[in-house]
Amino acid sequence: MVISGKSREVKAVVLDDGETVRYATKRILIGPDQGAGNFVMRLFTLEEGGCSSYHSHPWEHAVFILSGEGTVKSTGRSIAVSAGDFVFVPPMDEHQFLNAGSVPFEFLCLVPVSGEG
Amino acid sequence: MVISGKSREVKAVVLDDGETVRYATKRILIGPDQGAGNFVMRLFTLEEGGCSSYHSHPWEHAVFILSGEGTVKSTGRSIAVSAGDFVFVPPMDEHQFLNAGSVPFEFLCLVPVSGEG
Repeated sequence: MVISGKSREVKAVVLDDGETVRYATKRILIGPDQGAGNFVMRLFTLEEGGCSSYHSHPWEHAVFILSGEGTVKSTGRSIAVSAGDFVFVPPMDEHQFLNAGSVPFEFLCLVPVSGEG
Repeated sequence: MVISGKSREVKAVVLDDGETVRYATKRILIGPDQGAGNFVMRLFTLEEGGCSSYHSHPWEHAVFILSGEGTVKSTGRSIAVSAGDFVFVPPMDEHQFLNAGSVPFEFLCLVPVSGEG
């Protein structure tokens, strides 16, 4: 059955680890719990000063920026991104997302089911 | 290598078939051409009066509404959707997307690579 929902009504999980991940939350919008067998749609919010960790893993990211301004750091460079931009992170590429502004930086990040643990 | 781009700068392909698909365009933001091996991120724009066809197929859709107001028709019901809503269409479920307003109705629709021909 086709299902829908409002992203704001999905529980936001705080990701901060007191070290490398700061002012960050994640909402899982579509995944195995909704019957999705191939990939998972997550919505990340980085508040002012927020960031994900600088890391890599065997799965890719398909990202779409919803609001705010951010920086994507990867090997040897930084990319400025804002609403309407898309980002593809190949498997095993180092990457980090940072809020570069003063309002929440929000983006969708899709991964294969194997990448959402 | 991490890549990014602006969705507005991606070529929009007109989908209108003069029959079941009206006032509709598609942009492929992330797919095999960008190195994505698992799934494809497409951005659809339905202008006022626009719609996709009512159909089904063996692959699922993971959808996120970016702007405007729309209706998702599926077996036995219609769902009103707007910016910030997500929609999951399971494999083989009948579905159709329609613009229900007077401004462009835009949404991301992700499919497995097998679903983007």
